[in-house]
Order: sequence, then structure tokens, then C-alpha cells
Amino acid sequence: MKTTSKPQEVKLKHIVEIAQSIGLDEDDLELYGKYKAKINLDVLEKKTRQSEGKVILVTSINPTPYGEGKTTTAIGLSMAINRLGFKSIVTLREPSLGPYLGIKGGATGGGASQVLPGTDINLHFTGDIHAVTAANNLLCAAVDNHIYHGNTLNINPKAIMIKRAMDMNDRALRNIVIGLGDGQKGAVREDGFVISVASEVMAILCLSNDLEELKERLGNILVAFSYDKKPVYAKDLNVHGAMALLLKDAIKPNLVQTSEATAAIIHGGPFANIAHGTNSIIATKMAQKLSDYVVVEAGFGSDLGAEKFVNIVSRKTGIYPSAAVVVVTTRALKYHGSSVAKTNITDEGMDALLKGFENLSKHIENLKMMGLEMVVALNMFPDDTPSEISMIESFCRKQGVEFAVSRAYDLGSEGALELAEKVIEIADKRRKINFVYQDQDPVEEKIKKVAKTIYGALDVQFSKSALSTLELIRKLNIEHFPVCMAKTQYSLSDHPELLGRPKDFILNVNEIRINSGAGFIVAICGNIMTMPGLSKDYAALHLDIDKDGNVLWV
Amino acid sequence: MKTTSKPQEVKLKHIVEIAQSIGLDEDDLELYGKYKAKINLDVLEKKTRQSEGKVILVTSINPTPYGEGKTTTAIGLSMAINRLGFKSIVTLREPSLGPYLGIKGGATGGGASQVLPGTDINLHFTGDIHAVTAANNLLCAAVDNHIYHGNTLNINPKAIMIKRAMDMNDRALRNIVIGLGDGQKGAVREDGFVISVASEVMAILCLSNDLEELKERLGNILVAFSYDKKPVYAKDLNVHGAMALLLKDAIKPNLVQTSEATAAIIHGGPFANIAHGTNSIIATKMAQKLSDYVVVEAGFGSDLGAEKFVNIVSRKTGIYPSAAVVVVTTRALKYHGSSVAKTNITDEGMDALLKGFENLSKHIENLKMMGLEMVVALNMFPDDTPSEISMIESFCRKQGVEFAVSRAYDLGSEGALELAEKVIEIADKRRKINFVYQDQDPVEEKIKKVAKTIYGALDVQFSKSALSTLELIRKLNIEHFPVCMAKTQYSLSDHPELLGRPKDFILNVNEIRINSGAGFIVAICGNIMTMPGLSKDYAALHLDIDKDGNVLWV
Repeated sequence: MKTTSKPQEVKLKHIVEIAQSIGLDEDDLELYGKYKAKINLDVLEKKTRQSEGKVILVTSINPTPYGEGKTTTAIGLSMAINRLGFKSIVTLREPSLGPYLGIKGGATGGGASQVLPGTDINLHFTGDIHAVTAANNLLCAAVDNHIYHGNTLNINPKAIMIKRAMDMNDRALRNIVIGLGDGQKGAVREDGFVISVASEVMAILCLSNDLEELKERLGNILVAFSYDKKPVYAKDLNVHGAMALLLKDAIKPNLVQTSEATAAIIHGGPFANIAHGTNSIIATKMAQKLSDYVVVEAGFGSDLGAEKFVNIVSRKTGIYPSAAVVVVTTRALKYHGSSVAKTNITDEGMDALLKGFENLSKHIENLKMMGLEMVVALNMFPDDTPSEISMIESFCRKQGVEFAVSRAYDLGSEGALELAEKVIEIADKRRKINFVYQDQDPVEEKIKKVAKTIYGALDVQFSKSALSTLELIRKLNIEHFPVCMAKTQYSLSDHPELLGRPKDFILNVNEIRINSGAGFIVAICGNIMTMPGLSKDYAALHLDIDKDGNVLWV
Repeated sequence: MKTTSKPQEVKLKHIVEIAQSIGLDEDDLELYGKYKAKINLDVLEKKTRQSEGKVILVTSINPTPYGEGKTTTAIGLSMAINRLGFKSIVTLREPSLGPYLGIKGGATGGGASQVLPGTDINLHFTGDIHAVTAANNLLCAAVDNHIYHGNTLNINPKAIMIKRAMDMNDRALRNIVIGLGDGQKGAVREDGFVISVASEVMAILCLSNDLEELKERLGNILVAFSYDKKPVYAKDLNVHGAMALLLKDAIKPNLVQTSEATAAIIHGGPFANIAHGTNSIIATKMAQKLSDYVVVEAGFGSDLGAEKFVNIVSRKTGIYPSAAVVVVTTRALKYHGSSVAKTNITDEGMDALLKGFENLSKHIENLKMMGLEMVVALNMFPDDTPSEISMIESFCRKQGVEFAVSRAYDLGSEGALELAEKVIEIADKRRKINFVYQDQDPVEEKIKKVAKTIYGALDVQFSKSALSTLELIRKLNIEHFPVCMAKTQYSLSDHPELLGRPKDFILNVNEIRINSGAGFIVAICGNIMTMPGLSKDYAALHLDIDKDGNVLWV
């Protein structure tokens, strides 16, 4: 549980001091206590530097249940770049309360490479996700209320496309029936909750450049279809203004500090398996204005966060990564190369490690295809042997990519200096970004291109429902939207148990959703839950607080 | 719509300056931007004054759809007491987002007597209500998850006593079925959402003296009954620690300022028709530590907020009001005395006004019964005539209570000086508080005493369900709990259309709920919704934001 690994001895600096270290003053901030602040949006216009900071995209191989330490490595890397005398800001997503109270634990790094104050960041932070929840749920209430009060838009209650949201792992709310009870004029209908970070409102918050665009995008959310099959948008219900109002503070990036008192911006939190999976573009742009190197974490492996960063974020914003970092652990490589049961993975030998390289090789190939130079970063664990490390290093050399050991967890910036040096070196040799698909490709084609080139699928199988939504997309004239693939993070395929580098598999697209506010098409592959559940022994059972307000893990 | 009446010309002072005016310094605060702050709880121990501030309880006659300006009067009164050279802090509840986006508009006063910054207070403020929502929903998810993972506590899914919460007016969530869908091991069952401010967690937050008590109370929430009819509490599910953790900041009172830059504390937001209806006791106690006069608003009329303040808050905490203020308007009095349709109420003549005195007389009687000295405050409107005003004054004189005109809306403190002087005068003549019922009275008896003495009911009719819960209460050995009456605010009875001073009515107790964490029994009288709905033309349709972040009312 990462939340307890917070180094209690770290003396936090006042957030105004952190702000000053990146050229901001107190007037640029809205303080949230002494250690958190929102940064005013006019900083985007006010601050000008010689050139914009370079974006370093941190990704990984397919994650395993152990956790690969991607956030820890990203934080350590940014601290190390600062240590080398450059300015660097790490930008991360805001942790969702659901997984924090569920199985995942914190999302604020670990050991000597953390963002702080960890508990506050992991809990309500500055309230952004709650604001997203409220904006989403206002829209949902507005739809049912519209039907209740006469339904002048002629909305078909069986064709409502949005769901209510909650920032909680609550499986019982996945599939529900609403509108029951006596004397109800409104519709009784099937509905369900998604976790707030999977909502389109969260994606919109993260893809908007300013309040005006935010409001416009919110207005463009496809809410429902009428009985005569016409699309109904949020703007038809006239609540997009109030939704934007609810997000007026949430749109401002949040400034915190790393365990070495460098600046970190944490803003927006779309999941990477079901949404586009990286922090807000406002946060990235602001960090570019204020530093030389922006270390951005994209969720999960190159097949998810990195692919979507390039094909959605870069395409829409012109923010191109200057280099990538692929985080690996020997444990995760062995896991991918192991054919036996997955306990005691560290006892696995060189064979498993060698076989596990297949997974890494695909991620390297993916990043190369997208035109990204990279460093493979081994997040080193105490029981990693020198021969294992040198095997990984020589594999990378054969692949023609850089390799560095990171001991950021134990040593902070000092443990990531080699990584930082190599990143800076390759970031100067940036190549042109290659999109996996083009705007004019039909959506079906876009999905196939991602599946075949990035996942290594043989082909794609679309369900009937998916095919009919593809038809609808053509009718709605939104074929130019990029696709946001929703897929398990554990495998390059849509089957979580297919580790390593699966081949000859068919990707199943079970459902396609239109996120016309976010401006992308979501393709749901395999069994992807948009509302997680709690395990039997979940984190909240162990979280406690003493009478003085200290967090306990019991 | 009160939100648009914010005087834009008011130049806000930095909240640290406001804090200094009541003897606090920056170290006592957690800033939330420049104009909001949380006050650290150790202020309760640290600050000592000669004597604790006197509590002035602001109540009203039964409200009408027009709004009586109780909050405006409370704010104006506190500003006026400051103007007279004493220290005064006004303490209010936090507005709920649901009604703000619904029909009610803001809850931050109006005209020249407001708490500021109004929009921030009305929106997410410092996130307290969102934290309450999260804590409540964690508990609900924990129950269904427990059943899903084997149900070792043997919980009967048909005997779950808690509901999920959302801070939104969403009628479609009142009655729902959850747990549907494929492959679900958990229970399919009826459920429903309450608005967050109606949740027991909100009541607990407002009735706890510190974090330790908060956690204990949360643990005592009655969650369900087992198949063998044993009570299951939140502590049996072991999530009360995490719930308290979620509330670690929410428990701290929020400091803002009035439109005359005096201190206001806004904390906790239980509805007064369905919960106990006043700000947190921590807020009141803290204000008592920091000022001479604490002006506390209790929701709705003396039959709701004031009755519950005395019989729940005073009983549990020893905070006794030193005096009461009863806010009236000529419009509201005429409304209560009018026999015709309720449009153009100002055209109604003296007859309606005279007849409306019956409603006021009952509230005066109620406050006297509870041992409270009072001033009747006429919240004056431009079309009030001198003869109307003098009629109200002479009525009050006949009743033996003080009367003052308040023009706080137009003139701020200057308009409430007479009211302030009279309040200060009578606050020195405090009598002993009389509880309406005693701890040892059976719950049934307690309900009857409130109904007969405070509402003027002839008798009480309990539904079958209510009677069986009364039986349960005896078995659980919690007969000593006070009762929290849930009733329409519009009438002294449980029928909103019975205006004036209804007589010979029977109060219907349809349902009784056990809030064993809050430590009271909720008696639901008549048709009381714990989840409001939106009207056809609700506030969110008119709320908007421009590109610079300014709130618009369109």
C-alpha cells in the first residue's frame, strides 16, 4: 500500500515557494491550504519563455498486478532533471477516490519519489473530480426531468446515451433501474453508474483549452436519441452553461510538490483503459510554459496511454512528445514470460525474463512506429541481480534503444540521474510523430489500424451493436473523430490472461460509444467495466484516522 | 434569484484580515483561495475569552414560497451587532448544490446583507458536502460488497436501512433497483438516493465535537438487520475509520465574510424539514470562543429548526440560545391569513394581515414555551405601509414580545441597528430553557409532545410501519434518543396547504427511521421527500458562465 510509504520526515515547503521556483508568484495562485494551490489560467498567456518545454512521455510495458512504479519513475525523473540544472515539472493525473479506497492504493508515487501531500492528493484534493461528478449528474437529472415535465424534445427513454457517475467502486450501481415509485410521471428505465473518471465530462475537462471550449464541448455531449431517431445534445437541454459553471475551478491545474520540493502539476484524471488516460492538456501546456522538460505520465502501457496520447492528445493539441520512457521491472518481464502460476515470480529464472522481452519488444516497436525516441527505464528492485540487469540492457541495445537503471524509489533524483541524462540526450533528436491513423480514415478502419499495428491483432470482430453504432456515426457525419480504445491494460490483446506478445488473436469490439463532446469514439474491447467493484479485502478496511487527524493503515 | 443580487461593488478583504478581526492568525487557517478558509480545530482549545459568546437563534414563522429573508436578517443582525461595538459572528449552514441548481437559488442572504463570495459558497465551497456524499456512499458500497463476497454478517438485503446519497435534485433516483446485470453474485434489491444533506452522515458531522466522536458516531450508524433480525452497524463493516478519514477536512468550520467584512462561519448543511437543520456545533462553539454574540440560523419556522435546536442541539451540547429572533414579512403574514388564490398577495388587505397573526402567535407561543425571549423582526419590503407596520408592532406588544423593523436587505447593518439593540437587551434576561420532552419519555410520547405542544395537533396517528419501528426502538434500547421531526415547512401541520394556525388536525407519522449514529429518531410526518426533484424551469437552466469565469443569470 503506497499511501503508507510516505516519508514522514519530508518537510514540505509552502506552496508559494514552490510556485516561485517556476516563476509564479502568489497572485497566480488560489491556495488550498499551505501545500496545494490552483494556478490561474491567465498564466498561460502571461508567461513567456524562450521556447516551450519538451514533453517526455512516460509509459510502460503491459502492467502486472505488482505495479511497475511508473508514477514513481516519472517523479524521480523530473526531480533528476531539476538536479541536472534544468527546470522540470512532472504532470500527473488526479487519483480517483474509488480505486484509492478499493484495491489500488495511492497514485502519488512511492519511497523517495512522491508527490506530496499524498493523503490530500489521494482523497478529495482540490475537489476537481467531485465537480466532474456533479456536472455529469446535473446533465443526467436534466434528461429525466425533461421527460418528466412533458418531454418536448421527444426523447426516447430507451435511447439515453449517458450514465450517472460516482467516484466510488460500487459494483451494485453498474446496472440499475430508475424512476420507480408511486405517482411518477417520468420514465422507468434501465440506467447505470460509471466511475466519475470514466465519464465523458472528465475527458472533456482534460481536452479543453479554456472555459469557452469546455462549455462548447459540454454542450456537444450526445445525450439521447428522440423517438424519431434524432440526436439530442446537452445544449438542447440547456444545462451546459451550468455544467461549465460547476467546473469553473476544476479547470484550473493544481500545483503540489515532489518529495524533493520540485514542482508537480496534477490535473484531471481520465482512466487509461476506458478513457484517454492522461492529465489535462491545460496542465501540460502550463508546465511547458514554466519549464524546460515536462514529464507526463500516460496510463498503462504503450498500447493504451501512449497510443492515445499520440493519436488523440497530440492530434488535437499539437503537443508532441520529444521522447518516451518505457518503465519495466524484472518482475513484470518475468511475469510476462512465465508459463507457471504467478506466485513467487522473483524465483523465476532467466528463461522467463528472456521470454518476457517479447512484451517489451512490442512496446518498443509501437513507440518507434509512432516516431518516438525512447529510454527503457528499469525500476530496480533490491533482489534484481546484476546478470538480469545486464540481460535487459543488452536486449535494449539490440533493439537500438537506450537503457537506464532507475533507483528513484530508494534514492529519489540521485537514483534517476542516468535516466535523466539519457532522456535529455535523446529529446534533442526528436523525430516527426506518426499517427497510427488519419482523420479521414473511417472509424472502423481506425480501430483496425490500432488493433493490427499497435496490439498485433490478426483482425477485429465487431458486435452487432458496434456495427450499428458505426452506421450511426456515418449518419451523424462524425467519421473524422479519433478513436479512444477501451481495453484491458494487462494484455496487448483484449484478453487479460494473454501475457507476453500474443499473436493471431481477434480483437472483439463489443460496443461503440459516441463521445461527441470529447470529440472521440470509444471502442469497448472485451470485458471492460466502466464501474469497478471492491474486492473482499479492500483498502478502506485498512484506512483509519486518529484523533489528531493522522492517517493510519491498520 | 438571490445569486444575482450580489453587490458587485463590494471589495472583499483577504480572509486572513477577517480572521485577524476575530483574534485568529494565518496559522489557525487553511486557506481556500483568498476569500475562504478552514479554521483549525485546535482553536477550540487555544482561544480563551472572559466568557463564551451568547447564542442568538434566528427563526421565522412558517415560510411561504416568497422567502422571508431569514438568512439576510441573520447576516444583517450580526453586522449590526458588530457596528454597535461588540464582536459578532453569524453562523450558517452550507448551501446544498441540489436546491441551488433547482428552485431555491442561493442561500447566502441578499442585497446589502450577504455572505461572500456568494457563488463559491453556493457551488462546491470547500467540498464539505462532497465529502459527506463520499463517506455515505462508501458505507453503501461496503454493504453491497459485503453481501457480494459471502455475507458473513448474514445481512438481509431486504432490511438495509441506509441509502446512497447525491447532492443533486434527482427525482429519478428516489426509488431504484440495484445490483442487476449478468453474472452478479450480489443482491438485486430496492434502493434509493437521498440528497446528501438529508443523510445521517451530514447530521453526524454537525453533531460531533471532534474527530474521535465523529468516528464513533459513524461506526454507530445502523446499516441493516441480519436475517435473524440482529442490527448490523457501520463498525461491523469496519469502514467507519475510512469514512472519518474522508471527513477529516469537512469537520473543520469554514470562515468567510459578510458584505460588511465581518466574520461569518458556514459549516454543515442538514436540511431542517428532514434533518435537524442548523450548522455544526463545532462552528457554533468556535464562534462562541471568538465573539460576544453568535447569530445562528435554524432552518424554517420555530416548529422545525428552533424546536430541533432546543431539543436536539441544546440537549446534546449544552449550547443554549440566549434569545431568539422571529423573522416575518407582511407578505408572509398576509399569505397565512389569505383565503383567496395566492397571487398578488401584496394587494391583500388588513384582514389577511390580521388573520395571518395567528401563525405568528403560535411561533411566539412555541418560543415562550421553550423558555426563549424574542424579538419579532419585520423584514421590511418597499411596499409595506406604515399602518401595516404599526399593526404588526402592536400585535407583538400585546403578545408581550419585542418588535423591530429590519431593513438589512437595503441598508445592511444600518438597517438592523434597532433589531440588534433589542436583541442585546433581551439576551441579558435569559430564562431557563425548557425541553419539550424528557430523555426518559418513550419515543412515541416525545413525538406526541412535539405534535401537540409545538404544532398544535389534536393527536398523532402512527402508520403500521412506524409502530413496528417503535417496537424495534424499545428492543434496541434506544428509547432515550431525542426525536428529529421531518415535516413540511409550510404549515404547522403535516399538510403544506394548511396555512395560518391549523387546529384539530391529526399528525400522520408515516415512517420512523433510526439514526443511531446521529443519536436521534427521525419521524417522517406526511409526505416528506428526502430526494427533491427539479421543476420545469429550474435554476440551472438560467445559470451560465462567460469565458472569463463570471457567473451569469440568463
